[in-house]
Amino acid sequence: MIVVLKPGAPQGVVDALVDQLRGWNLETQTIVGRENVVIGLIGDTSSLCDDRVQELSPFIDRVLRVKKRFKRASREFHPERTVVSVPTAGGTVEIGGEGPLVCMAGPCSVESEAMILETAHRVKAAGARILRGGAYKPRTSPYDFQGHGESALELLAAARTATGLAIVTEVMDTSDLEAIAEVADIVQVGARNMQNYSLLKKVGQQPKPVLLKRAFSATIDEWLLAAEYILAAGNPNVILCERGIRTFDRQYTRNTLDLAAVPVLRSITHLPVIVDPSHGTGLSQFVESCSKAAVAIGADGLMIEVHPDPARALSDGPQCLTPDEFDAAMANLAPIALAVGRPLQTAAPAAARP
Amino acid sequence: MIVVLKPGAPQGVVDALVDQLRGWNLETQTIVGRENVVIGLIGDTSSLCDDRVQELSPFIDRVLRVKKRFKRASREFHPERTVVSVPTAGGTVEIGGEGPLVCMAGPCSVESEAMILETAHRVKAAGARILRGGAYKPRTSPYDFQGHGESALELLAAARTATGLAIVTEVMDTSDLEAIAEVADIVQVGARNMQNYSLLKKVGQQPKPVLLKRAFSATIDEWLLAAEYILAAGNPNVILCERGIRTFDRQYTRNTLDLAAVPVLRSITHLPVIVDPSHGTGLSQFVESCSKAAVAIGADGLMIEVHPDPARALSDGPQCLTPDEFDAAMANLAPIALAVGRPLQTAAPAAARP
Amino acid sequence: MIVVLKPGAPQGVVDALVDQLRGWNLETQTIVGRENVVIGLIGDTSSLCDDRVQELSPFIDRVLRVKKRFKRASREFHPERTVVSVPTAGGTVEIGGEGPLVCMAGPCSVESEAMILETAHRVKAAGARILRGGAYKPRTSPYDFQGHGESALELLAAARTATGLAIVTEVMDTSDLEAIAEVADIVQVGARNMQNYSLLKKVGQQPKPVLLKRAFSATIDEWLLAAEYILAAGNPNVILCERGIRTFDRQYTRNTLDLAAVPVLRSITHLPVIVDPSHGTGLSQFVESCSKAAVAIGADGLMIEVHPDPARALSDGPQCLTPDEFDAAMANLAPIALAVGRPLQTAAPAAARP
Amino acid sequence: MIVVLKPGAPQGVVDALVDQLRGWNLETQTIVGRENVVIGLIGDTSSLCDDRVQELSPFIDRVLRVKKRFKRASREFHPERTVVSVPTAGGTVEIGGEGPLVCMAGPCSVESEAMILETAHRVKAAGARILRGGAYKPRTSPYDFQGHGESALELLAAARTATGLAIVTEVMDTSDLEAIAEVADIVQVGARNMQNYSLLKKVGQQPKPVLLKRAFSATIDEWLLAAEYILAAGNPNVILCERGIRTFDRQYTRNTLDLAAVPVLRSITHLPVIVDPSHGTGLSQFVESCSKAAVAIGADGLMIEVHPDPARALSDGPQCLTPDEFDAAMANLAPIALAVGRPLQTAAPAAARP
Repeated sequence: MIVVLKPGAPQGVVDALVDQLRGWNLETQTIVGRENVVIGLIGDTSSLCDDRVQELSPFIDRVLRVKKRFKRASREFHPERTVVSVPTAGGTVEIGGEGPLVCMAGPCSVESEAMILETAHRVKAAGARILRGGAYKPRTSPYDFQGHGESALELLAAARTATGLAIVTEVMDTSDLEAIAEVADIVQVGARNMQNYSLLKKVGQQPKPVLLKRAFSATIDEWLLAAEYILAAGNPNVILCERGIRTFDRQYTRNTLDLAAVPVLRSITHLPVIVDPSHGTGLSQFVESCSKAAVAIGADGLMIEVHPDPARALSDGPQCLTPDEFDAAMANLAPIALAVGRPLQTAAPAAARP
Repeated sequence: MIVVLKPGAPQGVVDALVDQLRGWNLETQTIVGRENVVIGLIGDTSSLCDDRVQELSPFIDRVLRVKKRFKRASREFHPERTVVSVPTAGGTVEIGGEGPLVCMAGPCSVESEAMILETAHRVKAAGARILRGGAYKPRTSPYDFQGHGESALELLAAARTATGLAIVTEVMDTSDLEAIAEVADIVQVGARNMQNYSLLKKVGQQPKPVLLKRAFSATIDEWLLAAEYILAAGNPNVILCERGIRTFDRQYTRNTLDLAAVPVLRSITHLPVIVDPSHGTGLSQFVESCSKAAVAIGADGLMIEVHPDPARALSDGPQCLTPDEFDAAMANLAPIALAVGRPLQTAAPAAARP
Repeated sequence: MIVVLKPGAPQGVVDALVDQLRGWNLETQTIVGRENVVIGLIGDTSSLCDDRVQELSPFIDRVLRVKKRFKRASREFHPERTVVSVPTAGGTVEIGGEGPLVCMAGPCSVESEAMILETAHRVKAAGARILRGGAYKPRTSPYDFQGHGESALELLAAARTATGLAIVTEVMDTSDLEAIAEVADIVQVGARNMQNYSLLKKVGQQPKPVLLKRAFSATIDEWLLAAEYILAAGNPNVILCERGIRTFDRQYTRNTLDLAAVPVLRSITHLPVIVDPSHGTGLSQFVESCSKAAVAIGADGLMIEVHPDPARALSDGPQCLTPDEFDAAMANLAPIALAVGRPLQTAAPAAARP
Repeated sequence: MIVVLKPGAPQGVVDALVDQLRGWNLETQTIVGRENVVIGLIGDTSSLCDDRVQELSPFIDRVLRVKKRFKRASREFHPERTVVSVPTAGGTVEIGGEGPLVCMAGPCSVESEAMILETAHRVKAAGARILRGGAYKPRTSPYDFQGHGESALELLAAARTATGLAIVTEVMDTSDLEAIAEVADIVQVGARNMQNYSLLKKVGQQPKPVLLKRAFSATIDEWLLAAEYILAAGNPNVILCERGIRTFDRQYTRNTLDLAAVPVLRSITHLPVIVDPSHGTGLSQFVESCSKAAVAIGADGLMIEVHPDPARALSDGPQCLTPDEFDAAMANLAPIALAVGRPLQTAAPAAARP
């Protein structure tokens, strides 16, 4: 940590600061510049809050942190890439690392047994390994459909039995976690709850992998610190999901998909990173092209909304692909995936893949 | 609701759409422009999701909502301003309407009995009516101080007994709500939980007033829809608190305080609106000037962080005023408050107020 | 155009409005909803400013524009895609449409004859068809290197002669335009001047194609309206260049590359769209992956900064590729370009391309 | 300047870096932390670009600038506040420092002799000292009214003669500057041209004071560096004007007025700062409340749009006050101005001022 003093800070202030910092069991080294004095702190500053240092004196101009605040999520701490393994009836699905890509697909909400089963069979046939579907839905308005809750969980379980797909579904309340984790192979924390720290601690204390979506306006550091809550609570299996951030231009797309976050994350964290182009753009017509870009830029997988009849979807219809559109998108993705050396995983016995 | 069709939409499509919309018990009226056809929907569209209409046909260009989605929070539904009454040993505190302003003040976190009592006495003497102090703290890093929890609640109760101030403190988890609501006169939902809908429903089902902070990147509509969750659950006493939004420039202030949101909100909602300049700027040196502006622009009150020794604060030190600085700020605010015709409430018997 | 009145607007107000709008030679049609009256305007509203209508009465809640304000830039007006042709000694380069992709590459600034010639030969060998290089540089600080001006133009001309590459370079001042357009095959308007309307009008009045970069915080509509200035002044050859927008998170990348803007633009405008991943991220380590994504998502070309010795670059060093890195990037891009059916154009006689 | 190396940078790299930096005539001092090495640079780094240092080695993690890049605009360089003096027939108007506040008012565009004269007389009577009015208008669409140009300049000159008010009007093109500076007492550079560096250099070379509006998404540092261009070119009389920034929420206001920028600027620059609530909100109904807040927070003045008939304004009607509304706003501002100790300047002989 580096403490920059304001021009003209008296020597007495510098000396007092140094004394105080040493009292905190830190070594210090002082650089006297032409106008500013700078104090470097040597030692374990990870538990030291920048604010506390800043407040030591009004002569402090800035406190600069040299080390990242996230540790377990960092590649420095954990250089090899995390691969999250999800056992399914159709074999283990692996997410992350340098292996084949994974596609999660399904409806925004689980609406009925027929629709979830139909969707599950179709997305499996097209190459998805994981079925998404919401039982509990965070909706902006209290008057919107809030999800079918527990009964939807049962339908997801039935779809798993019928298809062998793994299940990912969202938890919104700590009191629902146990029931959800019984059915889900991956527990999702949505964008709106990314900084719901009570929830993060709880999902960190249970054994199922966690899919952590980025909040609308979370910086990458805040997102990784949210992951750190889960890791620090004991659960090493966190999958990051970029789903679009909020910017000044929302006329043509619901969010701005931050695809460059994928290579940025791959450079600083070992956790797998997937992309959700459905929420990222909010419009089905852009899902295929954004999926291609996500694969090209290095994502470990995709999460795509598919609904048998988007016009009648109870939520998020405009961003859902039909099963036919999903078939086409998966077919068109395949050559890009091959071109980057990471073919799409499928449930079928791994035949002739280059 | 207005449905704008794309140029060139065939007559058959228009007719089919009109049939479908009428099947939903809505009247329609069609405007044939030079290039676009527009269909107006007449009837109760409040429970109709824009998305569902959008998905009816690929020839639909846009769906425009004429009415707001929030209802109980709107002035159209409830023209007279809500005044939230908080009974205290020192008399009822009223927040909202056109009456005197209310100041809430206190430390970010409750750290010890001595510090909370000292702060409470000082902020009361300076004119605050409500003591703020965190028992459960949402912190960006899992390694930061997370609040003293239940023992801090006891200290807040002691401070209330000692001073007669009302208490506002934050709830982060539905499972803590009961314990918090026993001590708190106002329950706070923080910015990070503004769209934690499980929590909103629960605070809406209990009787204590709720202070709802704006999320970092919440639009005004999203914020009012979050309030709508609380109102719809049965609790009419919601206080909105602007605390700064996230923008591209974060070098000099932690957030961008959106002061113009105050008159905007006063024009569309009846709920009281207060401003938190401490979080809004993140720096104590800007708290007084921003407080003056908040009063001048029409806020119903202020929430200000005060700590007896900011340099040793366990959280948010740089944005805390010392008690002496708070005394000065309150004294300097008074003439602005008088100039806008809304003097500051104090606990003292309302002496010579003009 | 649609005029939404506030609830409770008196009939007299509605009648007066209708009279006034008809006085502007517009037909009107009125929809009487349960709470709101809506007036539809029929006729040519393209020259009508929303604001003027809004101001007609305080009972107007909102004015909704049905048609886009840009016309010449829109696909509705001009359905077939524009292909910008640039004649060079090595054959015509075509940008846009559905044909092969174009790569523009070169240094941020032209620094010396040796460096620009070396760079030109290397980027040509790797497959670029157009050489970029700044003679006049917009720099945030007046104390930064401002470009070598006219002498740099001469060096660009020499590089063109030596390699047969076309030249793209930036104009910042209307008074420099003539000299720049003499050397440049494509005239660039930078992000900071995207709304310098005097400059847009002038580049619209000269015959060279114009590369129009998106401003830091320009919406897509504002960007297309800036293009409309050029088109309306008589120049049909406008190339749009996405180069990153400004958002709340600038810690790891200089800007947020808005790749989804590419398919959005392709759906509403006929103009070619290229992507600049160098400015888009600001860091050379992310240029290749973002280039791949740009190609996968449907861009018509790329603009990439290449410098023989980035560590000594007079500007933008951290985002420049070395010629070796550029070679590698182009080689790695090729399979993605093939996978989307749009191979990279090269100067070499079009050999065995599928 | 401080150079932070990545963990694990070899000693040879550190030594080579130190040699190179010393070769640039800088002293260095090295701090060896537990994981990172940090090199402090001592000497004149103001002309050193962070990027050049960053590129010296891939082992450099970050380069941290200790000193601000703006110098002439900084309070460190120029501690006393700049007061810009504008001579008028009605006495000198002073902007900045700690003295009385200045109000600039008038229409967005100069539309006719009658309207500009009427407006001038009315705003003068209400207390404005400076008349604003556009002759050249930057408009988002090429099809919008672009201002009456030279003939409007003549009308402004006539209004000055008739009223004794000073004139502020915008320059968009370096080729118009001479004609504008002949009429204008203050030359305005608009938000869209804040980083039009050719224009900044030219207005810096002429003697009239310059009003520099903040660009939609300019950081405070970028804004002060734009001012630095003008100062460095020789013109010390720069007035900063906050006019709202672009954020994610634009539903209720056209921009987000960044009022906290006022105290931030007062802490780091000596230049006067005024606020434009008309553009800042885009709606006349919020202009008075935002003006009060601007005065309360410490602005040196205001710029307010006033039009005799906003419904017929050729531009920006919805944000214009009528002369009667302006009278009321000025009357309501007066007590706030008194409360902060900075009464509004008026042209009238300074009568009963407290």
